[in-house]
Amino acid sequence: MSSEEPTNAAAEESGEKKPSKKELAKLERQRKRQEAAAASAAAATANLSISADDPLAANYGEIPLNDLQSKELSAAVWTPVKDLTDDLKDKSVLIQGHAQAIRAVGKKMAFLVVREECFTVQCVLTVAPDLVSPQMVKFATGLSRESIVDIEGIVSVPSQPITGASQQVEIQVRKLYCVNKAVPILPINIEDAARSEAEIEKALQAGEQLVRVNQDTRLNYRVLDLRTPANQGIFEVQCQVEEIFRQFLLSKGFRGIHTPKLIAGSSEGGAAVFRLDYKGTPACLAQSPQLHKQMAICGGFNRVFEIGAVYRAEDSFTHRHLCEFIGLDVEMRIKKHYSEVMDIVDGLFVKMFDTLNEKCAKELEAINKQYPFEKLKYLRKTLRLTFEEGVQMLKEAGIEVDPFGDLNTETERKLGQLVLEKYGTEFYILHRYPLAIRPFYTMPCHDNPKYSNSFDVFIRGEEIISGAQRIHVPEFLTERAQACGIDVSTISTYIDAFRYGAPTHGGFGVGLERVVMLFCALNNIRKTSLFPRDPQRIAP
Amino acid sequence: MSSEEPTNAAAEESGEKKPSKKELAKLERQRKRQEAAAASAAAATANLSISADDPLAANYGEIPLNDLQSKELSAAVWTPVKDLTDDLKDKSVLIQGHAQAIRAVGKKMAFLVVREECFTVQCVLTVAPDLVSPQMVKFATGLSRESIVDIEGIVSVPSQPITGASQQVEIQVRKLYCVNKAVPILPINIEDAARSEAEIEKALQAGEQLVRVNQDTRLNYRVLDLRTPANQGIFEVQCQVEEIFRQFLLSKGFRGIHTPKLIAGSSEGGAAVFRLDYKGTPACLAQSPQLHKQMAICGGFNRVFEIGAVYRAEDSFTHRHLCEFIGLDVEMRIKKHYSEVMDIVDGLFVKMFDTLNEKCAKELEAINKQYPFEKLKYLRKTLRLTFEEGVQMLKEAGIEVDPFGDLNTETERKLGQLVLEKYGTEFYILHRYPLAIRPFYTMPCHDNPKYSNSFDVFIRGEEIISGAQRIHVPEFLTERAQACGIDVSTISTYIDAFRYGAPTHGGFGVGLERVVMLFCALNNIRKTSLFPRDPQRIAP
Repeated sequence: MSSEEPTNAAAEESGEKKPSKKELAKLERQRKRQEAAAASAAAATANLSISADDPLAANYGEIPLNDLQSKELSAAVWTPVKDLTDDLKDKSVLIQGHAQAIRAVGKKMAFLVVREECFTVQCVLTVAPDLVSPQMVKFATGLSRESIVDIEGIVSVPSQPITGASQQVEIQVRKLYCVNKAVPILPINIEDAARSEAEIEKALQAGEQLVRVNQDTRLNYRVLDLRTPANQGIFEVQCQVEEIFRQFLLSKGFRGIHTPKLIAGSSEGGAAVFRLDYKGTPACLAQSPQLHKQMAICGGFNRVFEIGAVYRAEDSFTHRHLCEFIGLDVEMRIKKHYSEVMDIVDGLFVKMFDTLNEKCAKELEAINKQYPFEKLKYLRKTLRLTFEEGVQMLKEAGIEVDPFGDLNTETERKLGQLVLEKYGTEFYILHRYPLAIRPFYTMPCHDNPKYSNSFDVFIRGEEIISGAQRIHVPEFLTERAQACGIDVSTISTYIDAFRYGAPTHGGFGVGLERVVMLFCALNNIRKTSLFPRDPQRIAP
Repeated sequence: MSSEEPTNAAAEESGEKKPSKKELAKLERQRKRQEAAAASAAAATANLSISADDPLAANYGEIPLNDLQSKELSAAVWTPVKDLTDDLKDKSVLIQGHAQAIRAVGKKMAFLVVREECFTVQCVLTVAPDLVSPQMVKFATGLSRESIVDIEGIVSVPSQPITGASQQVEIQVRKLYCVNKAVPILPINIEDAARSEAEIEKALQAGEQLVRVNQDTRLNYRVLDLRTPANQGIFEVQCQVEEIFRQFLLSKGFRGIHTPKLIAGSSEGGAAVFRLDYKGTPACLAQSPQLHKQMAICGGFNRVFEIGAVYRAEDSFTHRHLCEFIGLDVEMRIKKHYSEVMDIVDGLFVKMFDTLNEKCAKELEAINKQYPFEKLKYLRKTLRLTFEEGVQMLKEAGIEVDPFGDLNTETERKLGQLVLEKYGTEFYILHRYPLAIRPFYTMPCHDNPKYSNSFDVFIRGEEIISGAQRIHVPEFLTERAQACGIDVSTISTYIDAFRYGAPTHGGFGVGLERVVMLFCALNNIRKTSLFPRDPQRIAP
């Protein structure tokens, strides 16, 4: 586990509330300062960009806005930075990206590191007759970091490895245009945001104090924070998790569906929901697609999955809760046993972990560089333990838990350790949970109504998936809802769905952000949500 | 275009409000009636299901609930109904599905049509010593329609084609178990719900009055309505539209993202939004992922797409508006021209139409059978007309429109006709829209600020896609927002996103339900939403 950001974790645990107003005022001051600086920089650059006395003036400068308003179709071909390899040696290329780093060497030379997504390339300007003028070098060194630049130049292969960029070639710049300027003083520097905790510690031991960007600042300036290699990696992994989920299920005969998030009444009851007025009707945001995905099964769909937003209004100030996240949901007919659902979980996640390790090797490396983690340990055939077996393992380790109560975060983590030691896996299924701690629609066990045909799945000691066989008999469903204190009239359309011939069925749900967080052993779910929403944050 | 359901369309146009209370009372009455009927049917079936004097009693009956609570793992293999072909002749198979139709022929024979998803098979019970008892036939004919049944039997191939089922084999039933009973009186019969308008008309001419199920009744009992072949087809097409969208974009280097739907303030302004309280902060549901998908581009992502819910609180009582729908959104860096975005639209949709026609032939046939439509006409290279050219075409046809105003639904449809006549396509792009009628973030044309670098795309004369180059310069964006009467302070995090080096970019958005509706020439968007939400409907 990464030991990143103790300061921020502490702030989270202390439950510090509403940084927003103070923070907003600070942002506003910063913004004004930047605007003023930008204005003066613009004035300076204007002098630079068109230099009447430079015969090479056409080779550099700011592109006027009018030229960027789709003025002309261009036959030019931009080479992606990631494709810049020694195959292109001596070739002329055109690239576009952020000017991540800019360094002058005297007045006759400048280095620019240009970044596009995860990839960076070093670009060199050297004053030379008819090619590069001193004014052009001055223009380059006057650029603000993170500005968007178009660069035309010749690919060269240096004799020594390049350490400051991902690509092992350089570009000898011939033309350099600024497409869009960044403010001169950035609220976060990408190098700072990309630094690992280890680097900061190492520097500190050498007596150097490096900037540590805390989680809240990152999220306030998310558009800058997202540009780090680790974040580019995280969101590529997220995209792949979704893609693997879809492709596996499609190949198994599942159909992708979308169910409404605007729900009359108060969803499944229980957890806090976001309430709103729907054209005069009290409504809420669905806390899961549970009821509707089951209704799809009642609607004659054999197997369905859904990828969509899930809303929780709970005041959970933890590293693993969000108020809005992406649910990956599955529901399927079962013929005889809820193990048919666990078989899908097993096949899906083993396939997912395999594919991520293979297809996202570069991205995982980028994440690992900033947030070191060990590869997830998992078995070819996923371990299944009953809840009773889990309780017994804990007992043998000296931890007494209520055999019909729920595990808490601490005992779950402890059990994860015990399982890892005994079975060598950080991914396993715990099933036959006590009925009392599961939702009303969970099917009780055939042999003991104190237990249920349900399961949770754990990664690195944290719960990530909940699943079960559901009750498909309307009378029994009504009885169980009442026993759980639910006002049956609020879920009548759901219960009615089972009156017209309902198959035995089951399913599960998993949070996309949690899968990415736990696969990469990240310490905070906010790292795996593009623009996270928690009880204290609804911006940007 | 199908001429289905004039009554319902009329009801929609008259703006009839709040059928809900009356409707709900009716539903409640119906439910109680059904429950009573179910109770008496259950009593009757109990006598049937276990018949002590029948030596074959073990071969049929109701499966007790306890046996359905994951009592045992089963090695049995169920054959999907769609796989029942004459390859299986004389083989014993086990199937599960809804008992769609049940017909007795005297006391010694019964026919059951069993349905699984789109597919149906005819099952035959014939009294024979040691195989099928008269009591078993009685049990079969006593089943309520739509009940879930497990059937074991021998595949036979009849000499004559089967018209009442999709599969051209029969099953000679040996065992028959009821997994779950439907209520004896269904609120909708599947045969009625699956009937085309043409069939009803034809019967009427022959003096027979067949049941016509109107749109509201369908939606009230959506879990039954969804079981029709047309609806199974529609949602398979919807699933494929999404899949083709994703695969095309992934192959072009786009990354799938998810942006928050909970937004502080009031989203982009303009259209009515659903408001809610977010932990004390006024918030709303995003009316599009516009601002955040652009912020992802500012966050260093080259090309992104998003598939997610979009919320509109407008009181639009039309065949083409929903309060919640699935947006397919795209945003991408552009190098020189918004035509780069139109190129993606072109390639994506031509690929989509080709693939749907090829991969979903069966589903399109099922839809066509109930809702007849003509195949969409489209060109290999999508036609692009400027707004000015469109206005000119209308003018030449005698229709004067404001050259700087918007087209209305009627003129759009008329232009669609003109384009079809002149160019032979029902899918085309209209670009260079007047700036005044586009959102504030739209980039004006380089040569005329009265026009913009924007486009709409039409299918069968209806607008389906809106896209544009966006303004990437924060000062200009602020100016345009102010000019459009937007309180800039409410979108400051959005505008600030462009201060740190923002690339030129553009994108588009399209509604998933509309694509399916217009591709299949359906007359109502409620047909392509699983559980639609409109100003009058938030259930089921």
